Amino acid sequence: MKVGILGASGYSGLELVRILLGHPEFEIAAATSEQQAGRPLGEAFPSLRGRIDLRFEAMAPAALAGRVELAFTALPHAASAPAVHALREAGVPVVDLSADFRLRDLATYEHWYGKHAAPAHLAEAVYGLPELHREALRKAKLAAAPGCYPTSAVLPLAPLLRAGLCERTGIHIDSKSGVSGAGRKVEAGYLFAELDGNCRAYKPGFTHRHAPEIEQEATAVAGGPVRVSFVPHLLPTVRGIATSVYVRPARGATAARARAALEEAYASERFVRVLPEGALPSLQAVRGSNFCDVAFVEDARNETWILLSALDNLGKGASGQAVQCANLMCGLPEEMGLLAPPFVP
Amino acid sequence: MKVGILGASGYSGLELVRILLGHPEFEIAAATSEQQAGRPLGEAFPSLRGRIDLRFEAMAPAALAGRVELAFTALPHAASAPAVHALREAGVPVVDLSADFRLRDLATYEHWYGKHAAPAHLAEAVYGLPELHREALRKAKLAAAPGCYPTSAVLPLAPLLRAGLCERTGIHIDSKSGVSGAGRKVEAGYLFAELDGNCRAYKPGFTHRHAPEIEQEATAVAGGPVRVSFVPHLLPTVRGIATSVYVRPARGATAARARAALEEAYASERFVRVLPEGALPSLQAVRGSNFCDVAFVEDARNETWILLSALDNLGKGASGQAVQCANLMCGLPEEMGLLAPPFVP
Amino acid sequence: MKVGILGASGYSGLELVRILLGHPEFEIAAATSEQQAGRPLGEAFPSLRGRIDLRFEAMAPAALAGRVELAFTALPHAASAPAVHALREAGVPVVDLSADFRLRDLATYEHWYGKHAAPAHLAEAVYGLPELHREALRKAKLAAAPGCYPTSAVLPLAPLLRAGLCERTGIHIDSKSGVSGAGRKVEAGYLFAELDGNCRAYKPGFTHRHAPEIEQEATAVAGGPVRVSFVPHLLPTVRGIATSVYVRPARGATAARARAALEEAYASERFVRVLPEGALPSLQAVRGSNFCDVAFVEDARNETWILLSALDNLGKGASGQAVQCANLMCGLPEEMGLLAPPFVP
Amino acid sequence: MKVGILGASGYSGLELVRILLGHPEFEIAAATSEQQAGRPLGEAFPSLRGRIDLRFEAMAPAALAGRVELAFTALPHAASAPAVHALREAGVPVVDLSADFRLRDLATYEHWYGKHAAPAHLAEAVYGLPELHREALRKAKLAAAPGCYPTSAVLPLAPLLRAGLCERTGIHIDSKSGVSGAGRKVEAGYLFAELDGNCRAYKPGFTHRHAPEIEQEATAVAGGPVRVSFVPHLLPTVRGIATSVYVRPARGATAARARAALEEAYASERFVRVLPEGALPSLQAVRGSNFCDVAFVEDARNETWILLSALDNLGKGASGQAVQCANLMCGLPEEMGLLAPPFVP
Repeated sequence: MKVGILGASGYSGLELVRILLGHPEFEIAAATSEQQAGRPLGEAFPSLRGRIDLRFEAMAPAALAGRVELAFTALPHAASAPAVHALREAGVPVVDLSADFRLRDLATYEHWYGKHAAPAHLAEAVYGLPELHREALRKAKLAAAPGCYPTSAVLPLAPLLRAGLCERTGIHIDSKSGVSGAGRKVEAGYLFAELDGNCRAYKPGFTHRHAPEIEQEATAVAGGPVRVSFVPHLLPTVRGIATSVYVRPARGATAARARAALEEAYASERFVRVLPEGALPSLQAVRGSNFCDVAFVEDARNETWILLSALDNLGKGASGQAVQCANLMCGLPEEMGLLAPPFVP
Repeated sequence: MKVGILGASGYSGLELVRILLGHPEFEIAAATSEQQAGRPLGEAFPSLRGRIDLRFEAMAPAALAGRVELAFTALPHAASAPAVHALREAGVPVVDLSADFRLRDLATYEHWYGKHAAPAHLAEAVYGLPELHREALRKAKLAAAPGCYPTSAVLPLAPLLRAGLCERTGIHIDSKSGVSGAGRKVEAGYLFAELDGNCRAYKPGFTHRHAPEIEQEATAVAGGPVRVSFVPHLLPTVRGIATSVYVRPARGATAARARAALEEAYASERFVRVLPEGALPSLQAVRGSNFCDVAFVEDARNETWILLSALDNLGKGASGQAVQCANLMCGLPEEMGLLAPPFVP
Repeated sequence: MKVGILGASGYSGLELVRILLGHPEFEIAAATSEQQAGRPLGEAFPSLRGRIDLRFEAMAPAALAGRVELAFTALPHAASAPAVHALREAGVPVVDLSADFRLRDLATYEHWYGKHAAPAHLAEAVYGLPELHREALRKAKLAAAPGCYPTSAVLPLAPLLRAGLCERTGIHIDSKSGVSGAGRKVEAGYLFAELDGNCRAYKPGFTHRHAPEIEQEATAVAGGPVRVSFVPHLLPTVRGIATSVYVRPARGATAARARAALEEAYASERFVRVLPEGALPSLQAVRGSNFCDVAFVEDARNETWILLSALDNLGKGASGQAVQCANLMCGLPEEMGLLAPPFVP
Repeated sequence: MKVGILGASGYSGLELVRILLGHPEFEIAAATSEQQAGRPLGEAFPSLRGRIDLRFEAMAPAALAGRVELAFTALPHAASAPAVHALREAGVPVVDLSADFRLRDLATYEHWYGKHAAPAHLAEAVYGLPELHREALRKAKLAAAPGCYPTSAVLPLAPLLRAGLCERTGIHIDSKSGVSGAGRKVEAGYLFAELDGNCRAYKPGFTHRHAPEIEQEATAVAGGPVRVSFVPHLLPTVRGIATSVYVRPARGATAARARAALEEAYASERFVRVLPEGALPSLQAVRGSNFCDVAFVEDARNETWILLSALDNLGKGASGQAVQCANLMCGLPEEMGLLAPPFVP
C-alpha cells in the first residue's frame, strides 16, 4: 500500500519515514516539504542515505489522490486543516498528526488555536488513541493522532475515571518532555547551549494547548467533567515524556481495585505495559518505541494515588501512534511495523 | 579563620572546596578523605591543580580541635554522627551536611535511617535553613544543613503555610534532580549510559527520606500537621533541582494574598528570588550558585496553586547553604563568598 | 534458525537482542548472563518487557550444542576463549565479539591481553570485517568481530593502502567514542557526573589494545608494515565513534585517484557510505545502524589527506557487524535484519 | 575602574559579565546589546537577577569615552572593527574578542574575513596571548584576544617550535569544541535535537578561519613557516575545547628535551598547567576557568609526539583570556579575578 507523508521534514515526519521504512505493508510513495522540495531525502537527512530513493516534493494534497492510498499529515496546526480538507475531498484517508482535528468542540478549538480552516471535517474525525477508540478507528477515514502529553496522561487516567475510582477534580499532572516535542523550531530557546543541563516548566496551570485535550478525553471516559492542572517541563534530552498524575481516591475506592482496573484495561493491549508493583517507568525503557509504560503508586497517608507513565513523544506520542491508527484504518494487524524494541542503551 | 572539611572527596565536599577557595575569610586548613588520604587534592581532583596546596588526610575529628575553628562534615549519614560528636566534644562548631541532625525527633530519624550514633547532640542542632532559622543559627554550634529536596520544597511553601493561606493536606511535590544529588555512588544505575537521555521517578509517595524532613519543617511553620506526597525524579544532568508544589488554597484565601506573602517573606533575602509574574525558574539560571528561584502560579479553574522552584542541589541545596550557615555562626556577612553568579551557559 | 547469545546482559549483548528481535531468520533460543541467570530478560531490561519471553541462563556452552545453530559470544576477552572453545568442540559456529580471536599472532595477543586460553582456534578464526574478508567469512565457522575503533579506522584506510596511494608510516588516528564502547563498567570514571559535558583522551600513542589490531589489518591490506599513532577519546554521549585519519599521500598519488579508490572500493557495499565531496560524517547520521560513513578531504598545502568516518560502536562497531558476519556464515543475504534506518533525532 | 562591554548579550559577553562580577577592581559601567537595549541585564538573563543593577544600552562607542576606562568588545567580526576604531579614537583602551585584529597581515585577514573596516589599527594591536606577548600587552592599548582553537593549539606547540624540537610541517591538529564556541547562533544546526549525542567534524583541512591564526602565531615563534592541517569538531557539550596536536620530532630531538621545554616554558605561568607524565587533560578539569592543561606523549614507534590540551572556550579561550589581557594593560596582577576553581562536577 502506497502512503504519503505531508510535512516529512519535521521531527515527527522524519520519524514516520523511519518507522515506515520498516513496515511490511506501507510504502512511502510521496513525501512533501516546502523547505526541502526537490532534494532527495537522503541528502537532506544523511541518516537516510542509501535507504530511500525519493525526493521531497512541494505540497499538493489533491494531486496525491491517485498516488497514495493513505496520507499522514505532519504539518503545523492551522496549516494542516486545509491539507486534510483537500485530501479528504479527493477521497484519501488521512491520519493527521496536528492538533486540528483533536478537539471535538469547534469553539474550544478556536479559543486555543484560532480560526479553524476546515471545521466541516471535525464530525468525521476520530481521536486516534486506539486503546480508547479502536472500533471507531477501524472505520475512520480521518484519525486525529493525539498530542504527546495527552497520550501520557489519558492512558493511565482512563481506567480509574471510567470505573469512578478517583475524583474528577483536583487532578495534578506534572509532565517532563524531551525537546523534540516542540518540533524543529529554530528559536533561541531550543539551542543546545540553552537546554543542555537545563530543566524548566513552561505554560503551567491551564495554559498549554494540550490541557483542554486531556480534559476532553478524560471527561468523555469519566462521564462527567474532569478538571486537571497541567505543568509541562522541558528536559535536557531529545525524546521522551515522563508524566506524574496525582489523583484523589473516590470515596470507598481501594488501591487494590484501582490497580486491578488498570491491569484489566490493558491486559490485552500490546503497547501499554502496566508495570508490576515496585517497578517504575523510565524514558530509556520506551525510547524509540511505541510503548507506553504505566505504574500505580498508593500514598494512603495523604489520600493520594500517583500514576506514573513514560512514552517516546515521537513514538507512542506521535508517529508510532499514527501508524497504529493507520494499521487499524487499513485492516492490518494493529502492531504491524511497530515492534522494534526500545533503543537501549 | 581556618576551617576543616570532613569527607572532602565527595561531590558536596568538593563543592565546599570550590566555594571556600573564593571565600575571603575561611581558609581550608584540613580536608579528610578515607579513599584519598595522603594524596594532594590537586592530584585526586585535577581541576584543583595549582589552586590548593593541601593533602587529603585520614579522618581524626578530635585532632582537628586546635587546627580549625569550624568544621564542615560532608560524610554519609550514620558516618557523620560520631564525627560530629567528637568535634563537638572537642569544642569545634560544626556544619553537618548529612541527614544525621536534621530530624528533630529521634524515633523518626531511627525509622528512616536506623540507629542514631549521637542522639545527645540532636538538642543543640539547628536546622540550617537561614531563611527560617536565622537567629538560632547565629548562636548555633551545630547546624544541620537541609537536604536538597526539602530546601526546594520548604522555601516556596513556608510563607503560604505560615499565613494559613493553603491547606495543610493534599500537597503534591514533584521534584526533578540532577544526578550529583546522589553523591559519587559507584553503582550501575548512575553510569552515564544508563542516565543519558533518561528520566525516571524513584521512591515515590512517602518513601524517600527527604519526605519526613519536608513535613517536619512544613509542620513547624504551619503550626499544625502537614501532609505531602513526594515524587523525586532523576534528570539527565549533573546539577539542579526543579520542584513543582501543588497546593489547595485555604477557604477565602486569594492568589493575590498568596503572592504577596511570598514576596514579603523573601523581599530582603539575598538568596531567594521570587520571580515576577510570568517568569518561571530554570535550572540554568541558578546553576553553580546559592540562589533559589521561586514562582507562583494560580490555576483557579482547578482550585490549585502551583509553586515552582529551582536551585543547585550542590549550592543552595548543600554546600552553598552550609557556607551560609557557617557565615552566620561566625558572625560574618551572610552572603560572604556566595555571590558568584550562576554558571551560564 | 535458532541462535544463542553468551553474555547477553552487557551493552553489545543487549544490542544483539535488539537487532535479532527484528531479524527475519534468527530466533534467540538462549541468552546467558552470570549476574542475571534465572531472570526473565524483560525484567532485567524493562525495555524488553513484552517483546521476548525468555530467561537468562547461566553459561554452559557445550550444552547449547543441540539447542542453537550458531552462537554469538559477547563476553569479556579472556572469558570468551574457553567458551568459544567449548562451542567449537561441540560443533557450533561462533561469532565472537571479544578480542580473543582478532589478533592472528599469538605473541601479539599475549603481549596485549595476557595468556590465551584457546590458541588452537586462532587458525580457524576469520577477522569479521565483511568488506575485507567476505569470501572467507562465507566459509567460516569462527568469526572474530572487529573492535569498534579498528572498524572505524580500517574501512577508510584500506582502499588507499591497498592501492599504495598513501604512505604506510606517519599515520595519525584520532578517535572519539561514546561511553558504551567501554561496556557496562561500574567504575567511578564512567559515572554520569564524571562524563557529562566532559571529553578526554585516554591511552594515547600506541597503548590502547585496538592499536595493534588496526596495524594488523592495515598491514595485511597494504602488503607491508603500517605504523599508526592512535589517540582514543571519550565523548559525553552513549553511542558512536568519529574517527579522523591523517595520512601522507604517496609520491605521485593524487587526491582524485584516492577519492576514486575509496568510491570504487565501496560502490557496491551496502553498509559503507562514501559521502559526496563537501559532506562530512556525523554520529547522528549512523546512530543505531550498521552504517559506516566515510569522507575524504585533501589538504594539499600540508601534503595531508584526511579521512573522516563515523559509525555506531554498538552497531557496525560490534553487534551489527556480528550479525552481518552471521548472515554470511549462514548463507543469508548479508544485509538481512540490518537495514533499520539510523535513530534520528 | 569602570569598564564597558560591547556586545554583552552573546555567550562571551555574558561570560565577561560573570567573570567581572567577581573581579575586585573592574566594575561594569556599561553593557551594550542591540537586541536587548533598554532591558535590565537581570531580566534578559535571569541568572543575573539580583546580581547586577544595569540596563543594556544600544551601542554608541564614542559616548563611552568619559564613562569607562577600558572596553571589551565581544562583537562579531566585521562589526567589531568600527566599534574598536571609535573607541580608540576616543582614547579608550580596548580588548577585542573578535577576529578583527588577530591577523597581522591585512591581505590574509581580507582573504578569510572580507574587507577590513579599520585596518589602521592593526599596527597597534597586540595578539592577546599573555604567555607569548606579555610585555607588549603591558603597554598595549588594543589587545586582540585570540580565538579559542588557536589558544588550545599554540600554547602546547610554542615551546617545541621555539626550541626547534619538532618539524614545522606535517603538523596535524584535531580539535573538539563545545557548542558555545559558535556563539548564540540561532540556526538549525545548533538546536539541541541536532547536537545531543552527536559529534561531527566541520571545515576540515585548512578551511576554518582559525587555521591561519594558528599558523601566524606558530610561525612567529618558530622563526620559519609552519604548516598545519586543522580539523575542528563539534561536541555534544556547551563548553570546552580538547585538542590533539601530532608533530614529528626534529632530527636529533628527544622526548625528554621536548617535555623539559614544555615544563620550563610554563613553570611560572599561572594558567598553563603542564601535567605530570601519565596524567591527561579533560574538559571537566578546566570548565569555567582560565586554565589550559597540557600533556606531552611520545609515540617513538611512529616517530610522533602528541600534545594534548584542554581549556574552556569561554574562559581561557575567550573571556578569561580577555580579562587576563586587561589586567596586564591596566597594571593589575595578571591573575586578578581569574582564580575561581573549575566548575566540577
